[in-house]
Amino acid sequence: RIDGQRLWDSLMEMAQIGATEKGGCNRQALTDLDKQGRDLFVHWCKDAGCDVTIDKMGNIFARRQGNNPHLPPVLTGSHLDTQPTGGRFDGVYGVLAGLEVVRTLNDAGIETEAPLEVAVWTNEEGARFSPAMIGSGVWSGNFDLDYAYARADKEGKTFGKELARIGYKGKAPAQARPLSAAFEVHIEQGPILEAEQKQIGVLTGVQGMHWYDLTLIGQPCHAGPSPMEGRRDPFMGLHRILDALYKLAAEHAPWARATFGDIRVEPGSRNTVPEKLVLAVDLRHPDQNILNTMDQRFREIAARIADETGLEHQIRDEWRSPAVKFDEKCVEAVRSAVAELGYSNKEMVSGAGHDSVYISRVAPTSMIFVPCEKGLSHNEAENAEPEDLEAGANVLLHAMLKMANS
Amino acid sequence: RIDGQRLWDSLMEMAQIGATEKGGCNRQALTDLDKQGRDLFVHWCKDAGCDVTIDKMGNIFARRQGNNPHLPPVLTGSHLDTQPTGGRFDGVYGVLAGLEVVRTLNDAGIETEAPLEVAVWTNEEGARFSPAMIGSGVWSGNFDLDYAYARADKEGKTFGKELARIGYKGKAPAQARPLSAAFEVHIEQGPILEAEQKQIGVLTGVQGMHWYDLTLIGQPCHAGPSPMEGRRDPFMGLHRILDALYKLAAEHAPWARATFGDIRVEPGSRNTVPEKLVLAVDLRHPDQNILNTMDQRFREIAARIADETGLEHQIRDEWRSPAVKFDEKCVEAVRSAVAELGYSNKEMVSGAGHDSVYISRVAPTSMIFVPCEKGLSHNEAENAEPEDLEAGANVLLHAMLKMANS
Ligand SMILES: NC(=O)NCCC(=O)O
Ligand SMILES: NC(=O)NCCC(=O)O
Repeated sequence: RIDGQRLWDSLMEMAQIGATEKGGCNRQALTDLDKQGRDLFVHWCKDAGCDVTIDKMGNIFARRQGNNPHLPPVLTGSHLDTQPTGGRFDGVYGVLAGLEVVRTLNDAGIETEAPLEVAVWTNEEGARFSPAMIGSGVWSGNFDLDYAYARADKEGKTFGKELARIGYKGKAPAQARPLSAAFEVHIEQGPILEAEQKQIGVLTGVQGMHWYDLTLIGQPCHAGPSPMEGRRDPFMGLHRILDALYKLAAEHAPWARATFGDIRVEPGSRNTVPEKLVLAVDLRHPDQNILNTMDQRFREIAARIADETGLEHQIRDEWRSPAVKFDEKCVEAVRSAVAELGYSNKEMVSGAGHDSVYISRVAPTSMIFVPCEKGLSHNEAENAEPEDLEAGANVLLHAMLKMANS
Repeated sequence: RIDGQRLWDSLMEMAQIGATEKGGCNRQALTDLDKQGRDLFVHWCKDAGCDVTIDKMGNIFARRQGNNPHLPPVLTGSHLDTQPTGGRFDGVYGVLAGLEVVRTLNDAGIETEAPLEVAVWTNEEGARFSPAMIGSGVWSGNFDLDYAYARADKEGKTFGKELARIGYKGKAPAQARPLSAAFEVHIEQGPILEAEQKQIGVLTGVQGMHWYDLTLIGQPCHAGPSPMEGRRDPFMGLHRILDALYKLAAEHAPWARATFGDIRVEPGSRNTVPEKLVLAVDLRHPDQNILNTMDQRFREIAARIADETGLEHQIRDEWRSPAVKFDEKCVEAVRSAVAELGYSNKEMVSGAGHDSVYISRVAPTSMIFVPCEKGLSHNEAENAEPEDLEAGANVLLHAMLKMANS
């Protein structure tokens, strides 16, 4: 069994880096604070006797050697970067639960056949640099390294330069190696486990998600003398498109999601009808066929409403993460760990993307969820119970041991 | 009669300062380009034998002396600042038409009883520093100087510091002096004169306008796992409020206007439901009673929809400019100038705010409009015909002479 207090203390120590007034965390990818968080993690890993490797994407791998050097490692991990208004657990919990597994095995003097590795994946959130999960995405061959290096934040700073600046552009190739198995433990970021009073989510997959930039282009004109009739006003299209997309999500309730996290306006002057609006659109569904239907309908809706309101429109595909089914052996390892430990549980699909989405393309993978308060995440008020975090780390420990010794 | 070619040449020379690729002008208030435009104007005025005074708001007054120093001046003028995607005529035409009147009188050796003054009012557009018409607003006693100095642009730079930086924080008090009369000639910025094929608009007043910041506050949460049902998503309120406000404007068609020129989002992350949206709202109507009704309805709509969508909301009153009725003697001077010159014309109310709104509170005032192509303004494609600009300046010349010698 892992040491729940030590896990909690590590989480709270990490949470001080980028702590916000409202009790959350703002430690966005490749900032000075991200560097501080990484430094602390590397320090802890070295203390725990791990060998630490950094790859060209800044992904960190802390390895605890096994008895059989010919066996590929069993990997766990998640991310240390947060949303701008992020919480203390999203990602961080998966990283520090992995470290706690290593510390627990050290304390108990338990050796494993396969080596164990704890990974920190760079820029999982996609908040500073789009797309999300780009560290694990490059590692698993989904994106080119050059594509990742060229991604720019809102100020135009590139991923490659920022990675070098904080000193985490490593030498190891950012490229998949054989793994015996991979696990990731994470807070649910949704309300289901809490509502059903289950302590552990046994994950069988991840829902599909599509990201777009929708641009609406009208004709700037003066707010006063220009009659409403002849205007080509992007807001006149926007409100109808939002309405139609919320209705589209409602048609595919309860699983479909439609989220608009960001909007930009040009020129952005109070007394001028805008020339341009750029809306970030995030559509999701666990069933890839339904998501494809939603994708099609989104394109039809935007085209029709833009046409009816005299606007030009463009849809740029920003990112797609198809629905994922996890490896049956890994899911079974989690299932039996939960049974052994006697935790209440539920089989479920993740609503959020995680690094495991990409890892699952190159290695047997699955995930473990624990409840979070009111399902709140990407929110400074994000919270989780110490006993649930402890339970999740125990399941991780048992599942990893099972795969490392089989 | 004024020299139409010289007026056009001066307009085109000024338009080079801040010229945009699409043939417009971006010469926002208190920027380096605004300074260049002011310097050129001051240079031209001194060449035309005028005495130039700068006041504490950066308003510029170029005076052509009259024979009777005891008579208050007849003033004309407008502004040199533009929208970010502005045109070559909005404001600039009124300033350079005033200069052309002075040049014409000089050439013809005509003296006037009252002195004439050509004014440049600072930050008319309200695009960089809200509210609009703040130079004439302070001068006419509508705002305090300190309030104006503290206004900040989107980058947090203040009006007072930027004014000093470009060297136009003058010594003269920014405070109304007695005027015999004030006129302003301007492009219509709307489609009416062009549609009705009239060359001159004889202005009897200006419509009322209210500016607000509407803030909608929700609860940030993760785009994936958070069910649509429980969300408090500012966009869910926004699209319904936009819809209701466009309908409100339609109820009071054809004169009511509802414009949303700017929107801000926090935190602005693709996969997080926003915490906050701030929408710039601009409502207008020529009838102050109807505008007051619209104001009331706007507050009801925002409160009801925010409530129904689980959002908090705030409405900040940013600026109000009540409907204006111009001075009958000044209107009559324009009317008879138009009649003498034989131009086709129409009596009308301005849809846009102008410096004359504030001047009219402290001096007999009226305005003259000329058509602009397709009614487009606050747009780089803004255009006007040289013969119309010439006609407007001729009307201005005659109206000013009438008031200066009566
Ligand atoms: N867990 C998490 O926040 N992932 C980011 C990718 C997503 O938007 O689902
Ligand atoms: N003419 C002009 O653009 N005025 C600015 C104030 C307004 O928005 O009407």
